[in-house]
Amino acid sequence: MQRILSTQLAQHVGKTVTVAGWVHRLRLLKSVAFLIVRDAEGLSQVVVKEAKMLGTLTEESVVEVSATVTRNEQAPGGVELTGPSIRVLSAVDVPLPFELHRPALSASLPTQLDHAALALRHPVRRAALKVAAAATAGFRTALSGQRFVEIQTPKIVGSSTESGADVFGIDYFGRPAYLAQSPQFYKQLMVGVFERVFEVGPVFRAEPSDTARHLAQYTSLDAEMGFVADHRDVMAALTRTLSVMMATVAARTRVTTPKVLPEIPAVSFTEALRIAGAAEGEEDLAPAHERALGEWALREHDSEFLYVTGYPMRKRPFYTHPDPASPAYSNGFDLLFRGLEIVTGGQRLHRYDDYVAALAAAGEPLEPYRGYLDGFRYGMPPHGGWAIGLERFVARLLGIANVREATAFPRDLHRVTP
Amino acid sequence: MQRILSTQLAQHVGKTVTVAGWVHRLRLLKSVAFLIVRDAEGLSQVVVKEAKMLGTLTEESVVEVSATVTRNEQAPGGVELTGPSIRVLSAVDVPLPFELHRPALSASLPTQLDHAALALRHPVRRAALKVAAAATAGFRTALSGQRFVEIQTPKIVGSSTESGADVFGIDYFGRPAYLAQSPQFYKQLMVGVFERVFEVGPVFRAEPSDTARHLAQYTSLDAEMGFVADHRDVMAALTRTLSVMMATVAARTRVTTPKVLPEIPAVSFTEALRIAGAAEGEEDLAPAHERALGEWALREHDSEFLYVTGYPMRKRPFYTHPDPASPAYSNGFDLLFRGLEIVTGGQRLHRYDDYVAALAAAGEPLEPYRGYLDGFRYGMPPHGGWAIGLERFVARLLGIANVREATAFPRDLHRVTP
Repeated sequence: MQRILSTQLAQHVGKTVTVAGWVHRLRLLKSVAFLIVRDAEGLSQVVVKEAKMLGTLTEESVVEVSATVTRNEQAPGGVELTGPSIRVLSAVDVPLPFELHRPALSASLPTQLDHAALALRHPVRRAALKVAAAATAGFRTALSGQRFVEIQTPKIVGSSTESGADVFGIDYFGRPAYLAQSPQFYKQLMVGVFERVFEVGPVFRAEPSDTARHLAQYTSLDAEMGFVADHRDVMAALTRTLSVMMATVAARTRVTTPKVLPEIPAVSFTEALRIAGAAEGEEDLAPAHERALGEWALREHDSEFLYVTGYPMRKRPFYTHPDPASPAYSNGFDLLFRGLEIVTGGQRLHRYDDYVAALAAAGEPLEPYRGYLDGFRYGMPPHGGWAIGLERFVARLLGIANVREATAFPRDLHRVTP
Repeated sequence: MQRILSTQLAQHVGKTVTVAGWVHRLRLLKSVAFLIVRDAEGLSQVVVKEAKMLGTLTEESVVEVSATVTRNEQAPGGVELTGPSIRVLSAVDVPLPFELHRPALSASLPTQLDHAALALRHPVRRAALKVAAAATAGFRTALSGQRFVEIQTPKIVGSSTESGADVFGIDYFGRPAYLAQSPQFYKQLMVGVFERVFEVGPVFRAEPSDTARHLAQYTSLDAEMGFVADHRDVMAALTRTLSVMMATVAARTRVTTPKVLPEIPAVSFTEALRIAGAAEGEEDLAPAHERALGEWALREHDSEFLYVTGYPMRKRPFYTHPDPASPAYSNGFDLLFRGLEIVTGGQRLHRYDDYVAALAAAGEPLEPYRGYLDGFRYGMPPHGGWAIGLERFVARLLGIANVREATAFPRDLHRVTP
């Protein structure tokens, strides 16, 4: 018999159907037992009159149940399954390290991560990954609608550029190579091919700090676009993208998403320092400053998002385009979401000579950047882009304190399994 | 003035517009010069009466041209730009290693790959990447429509499993780790969470062979689904997916795509040997056999696709589910496209004890698989899935001989740049 889903039961009242899923919970009462079966869409309640029918059935075993759909206002969804026959597809014969049927997982995070394949079945953990999937789908929909072309770029690179310290080394057929810390250079080169490109892919940071915000591998939602006047064109494209991402999350999940204003408020770095009450000479925003800015944006503009533009050049990577009117400041921006930076972006240099000068000024050798810079010799338009850290975005959206709970199998300083 | 695209020119006849792009070609005639500007969508022809206006302008420089749109039946698209003013956004002042405006790139493949940022601008190279983007989008659309949830899994793993030899080693915070050769184990574990999952991501093979078919990094289109009866449910889902992939490529590009029959013909491995004229005892299909099968499927079934099912267990990975009726053969399949295998899939083992037995039979230790196998202790339904190699798929679809031309920045035994 064709299996149906828990959410389809109400359409089959009075009929015999087959459901299948995991034993979410077993409730053995005096005269009756309830078997709660969990499938991809929800729960089904199966009424079992003869407890011996359950045999040695344990939670998380996989079962197929054929039974009659019966109305019962007390049951979840108003229906339950009666007169069942039960077939066990996979029996669980070891004790579970923790229970899945409570509203929250009681196990510590390390225990959850050790048993990720089990912990991720909990509705709260599942929901975070569904939000990540929806946000990613929205990102792609938004960009495809704005003429961006999807690309796939190398994750193994020949030289460690960007921030040399936090890079993983590889043995590449006996030669040294590295895991890419971002698709930055490749997405810029691909602006020369498609004008507008995006990539969703893993990036790798050999981040030695063990914090609630850092992962050794995370998913980066990257975009880059050519023929911009300056960073404001990039911000406008990002705002449209963010709006579609939120709409997609709202449509596909039960999460209430924040409003994205058609024009997200923007303040310059120097204004931001003043608003946050920071000292005038500061060169970056501390977490407390970002929080203060988040509160200010909500209060003054009714916005949970805020752009901060014009960060000092000294604090931005060498490929950042300076503000032509004020070259100590950049055409770079951050996007704060509820007082936390979740996107970094900006206009990039586009002329070869400017790159040579910027690397010289930074005291960096030209050689490791050769393959990247050659592309700029052959004509690149003014361009810019951004990168969204998916796990941080999801964590911020759902109020998850540790980014490890916003990904399936996190990698960090101490963890490389499962 | 707002820039318009080359494809929009015909809507602006008689008006002054701005286009921007790369100098695709300069044609200097006796009394007039033609400047062909290439943008993301196509070409614009600019008529330049005074040759000196072009100054030292060179091909691939980036320009912005304001001019009047004028009808001319001889011009591409029936319109050209007259009375231009030209602004150079990025000047190219080095000789190009090859010309881009010929119908085919004349440079050797290594030269093209050395200068990938330039070579990829050629319409033929661009087209292959656009087909890859469309196929990928179709893959996701098809699977999202069949209740599959997108996942992101680790590319850094703690133990080298699958095919130990061809694995890249990493220095992971001073400990050994490896680049994932596939998301196989993770997508299986995620069946326990979402029932149906897919992933589009890079996989890594330290493949020591330098062939036209191998890449050290390629893009794998992976799917895995639970609650299947056997591999035929997986094949049905793959067929639907393939059909949407082809429709998406046809809709988004100029490529004529092959028909995907609602039911792709399938032959068993033993039948396949007979059809291909191979010796009865063979344990795998040689390339010549696959080609013969491709011709047979076209002739007998008018299909460019053919499933071969029931490969011998000895030739399939340990997690493959045997055919219950004939346990020396597997519930695994390959999909041939024009006589070449482009998809491998099948039903997997789903019970912990079966995994322990299969590893013992293969003479493999249990320990490296511990993190993976634990998931199977906690209840997994019968399941199966497949992996499509994106670059091979695109190469086969477009008749590209070397898979390196179906990706932007290939990685192989000899190449780790640009």
